Amino acid sequence: MTRAAILTIGHELLIGQVIDTNAAWLAEELNRLGMIVAASLTVGDASGAIRWGVEQGQSCSEVLIVTGGLGPTRDDITRESVADYLGLPLQDSELALENVRARYASWGHRPPQDPGRLIQVPVGFEVLFNPVGTAPGLWYQDGGGRIIVLLPGVPAEMKAIWSAHVGPRLTALYGRSAIMHRTLRTVGLGETIIQQKLERVADGLPRSVQLAYLPAPNQVRLRITAHGNDAARQVARLEDDIRRVLGSCLYGVEKERLEEVVGAILREAGLTIAVAESCTGGRVLDRLTNVPGASDYIKGGIVAYSNEVKQRMLSVDPAILQTEGAVSEETARQMAAGIRSQLEADIGLSVTGIAGPGGGTATKPVGLVWIGYAASGRVEAHQRRFGQNRLLNKERCVMGVLDIVRLNLSDAGAHTGPA
Amino acid sequence: MTRAAILTIGHELLIGQVIDTNAAWLAEELNRLGMIVAASLTVGDASGAIRWGVEQGQSCSEVLIVTGGLGPTRDDITRESVADYLGLPLQDSELALENVRARYASWGHRPPQDPGRLIQVPVGFEVLFNPVGTAPGLWYQDGGGRIIVLLPGVPAEMKAIWSAHVGPRLTALYGRSAIMHRTLRTVGLGETIIQQKLERVADGLPRSVQLAYLPAPNQVRLRITAHGNDAARQVARLEDDIRRVLGSCLYGVEKERLEEVVGAILREAGLTIAVAESCTGGRVLDRLTNVPGASDYIKGGIVAYSNEVKQRMLSVDPAILQTEGAVSEETARQMAAGIRSQLEADIGLSVTGIAGPGGGTATKPVGLVWIGYAASGRVEAHQRRFGQNRLLNKERCVMGVLDIVRLNLSDAGAHTGPA
Repeated sequence: MTRAAILTIGHELLIGQVIDTNAAWLAEELNRLGMIVAASLTVGDASGAIRWGVEQGQSCSEVLIVTGGLGPTRDDITRESVADYLGLPLQDSELALENVRARYASWGHRPPQDPGRLIQVPVGFEVLFNPVGTAPGLWYQDGGGRIIVLLPGVPAEMKAIWSAHVGPRLTALYGRSAIMHRTLRTVGLGETIIQQKLERVADGLPRSVQLAYLPAPNQVRLRITAHGNDAARQVARLEDDIRRVLGSCLYGVEKERLEEVVGAILREAGLTIAVAESCTGGRVLDRLTNVPGASDYIKGGIVAYSNEVKQRMLSVDPAILQTEGAVSEETARQMAAGIRSQLEADIGLSVTGIAGPGGGTATKPVGLVWIGYAASGRVEAHQRRFGQNRLLNKERCVMGVLDIVRLNLSDAGAHTGPA
Repeated sequence: MTRAAILTIGHELLIGQVIDTNAAWLAEELNRLGMIVAASLTVGDASGAIRWGVEQGQSCSEVLIVTGGLGPTRDDITRESVADYLGLPLQDSELALENVRARYASWGHRPPQDPGRLIQVPVGFEVLFNPVGTAPGLWYQDGGGRIIVLLPGVPAEMKAIWSAHVGPRLTALYGRSAIMHRTLRTVGLGETIIQQKLERVADGLPRSVQLAYLPAPNQVRLRITAHGNDAARQVARLEDDIRRVLGSCLYGVEKERLEEVVGAILREAGLTIAVAESCTGGRVLDRLTNVPGASDYIKGGIVAYSNEVKQRMLSVDPAILQTEGAVSEETARQMAAGIRSQLEADIGLSVTGIAGPGGGTATKPVGLVWIGYAASGRVEAHQRRFGQNRLLNKERCVMGVLDIVRLNLSDAGAHTGPA
């Protein structure tokens, strides 16, 4: 199997100011191509350190992916340092200049008179066009076939260049070896419960198959990895077993997001939706509108942070707010029905809860949430109990709210009650 | 200055399953002690890889901190591999056994008959008691004074042993040398423009002071680092110079977020706010409501994704939507005025734009945004031009929208025009 190494460059990573998420992302991509990542290294923006890093990275791999230090500023010295290490001169690149111009044009600005470092390329390196930024990626293959790829450290730019150029090129060069990954995504159950449910399934696995649990707020990703000639069949078999046990908790595969799944269901059904949010403060709609084309099925919504807004804009009964409180089954129902009628949507969705850290009581603790769902001839509400942390609670709520839509509109519709 | 290196061990880090947060935490701690982190390395749970990692780490540092692979399972082979590298035998440790017993006692369980690996210690290593887990830390100083510290990979255990033992020991050995960091946060200007503006300031810096630029969507963090006895004065001087040049672009310091700054300004002024969002789809309100206690100044808002909702809920003139379009100065103004009056807030804020990837035209390209601001006796709108990427555009918009509030309500109020 081909061995790869990752070198991330940036002083900010070595003083603990920034957590390196690029290395994990690249590692996943390289593994997907069937490569083994032998090591990942981080060094600062100093020429000696970068040369040392490249040397170490190459000493344990055939493919070295470098990120960071390709920007226009004087602390971006990756180009010079790598060129120096390889004994190659730098020269201005017409293609890199074109990349800078294209980007500025798309922003409606005039490009800088002197793009400086941005267009310098070590002789022998190929320019990989950056579709979202000004710093191109750079690709080098030496006489012995060893590869060095330089990518910007800004995650969106790194990912865009990887997807457009680096991934396809590496696939063309190395093919895909017999390693398979498959990710299944669940919502609504915790890691421990899922692990217990899958205990028998996991116990019977052959050595060439691994199952890993990757938890996130109100969701767990299950990652299946299999090696060997039989890998595809092993992955399919384990996926079948997991689906049999977990059923409707599984909402998607690979990188699918719940908002994409829900959006596809709404589009397919030809239904529109509107959302009334309290504790999530707009995050449900933010997530739904991250999906391109979402305007086809989203009418909009109201963030009803105060009781006053809940009454005036959503027609929630003041007497209910008084007796039951803003976080209650009836308020959630009325919010869902109210937003549905106000925005003339097919589906009205609502969420009201106590995100924390303040606002909890003995009967209504921090983490208590009611989710409302209103459709033609039907209004219902579901209770959920989350934790103490405000931001995690908002995130857990979003997953819970979106999931109510999925469960109501998909074949799994029978299971909308609390788990 | 003392040079340190970090070695994190774990297969899960090299397949991209887990993001390494330990390295950033350790880096921050080592910097706090006045050390320079020369490099951070990650290798898998294989003896050869671990020995290679220790060798590389020691080659660039006097203090090597290793985490991971100290647990009880068969893939936890850090002890053996490090002992092997140093040519030291392993032996069972009474103190490590005590650590296991104490932990099980605290959980109310009987300890395992054979704690196996957990009590094996390379001869010459000292046991560092683990107050929250069973795997102790291990400390080694060779004849030349070089230090290797082994810590568990579970973050809570690593941090507990660090705080109880490693930090204090390193302080006793090396003292604290004079290194200082300071982060300044800007909004609204790109990295290149900021660098041009600061060119003169940066040119005159002594060698002991560094200035780094860390870009994010529509914001740039400026990180000042200074070494030596004069560090505090140097940092203060550079901060003064930067403030003089960048002025109102600076919105905060260290880890402050723009929504916190805006929230504090609103709270201080005793003003309430309401937001009408189109292209950001709820993200402005989501961000504002991430701040605990935000309900004191946030009335709520409307996500007006369709023209129909803009008309009905925000009283935007249908003729304007017809002639000027949804993404226009006048629509932004009417949305801001509409949400202000609908929710009876002191300030009405609005944003309408083309997030992409679809929806752009020659006169209104993807990335075009209008931000509206309505206050007592005043309604205005500002144009911004962002890029092609939908998610980045939403994020840039959020920063731009929040910044309009900051600029209007702070002393920097004179500068609300487009930069």
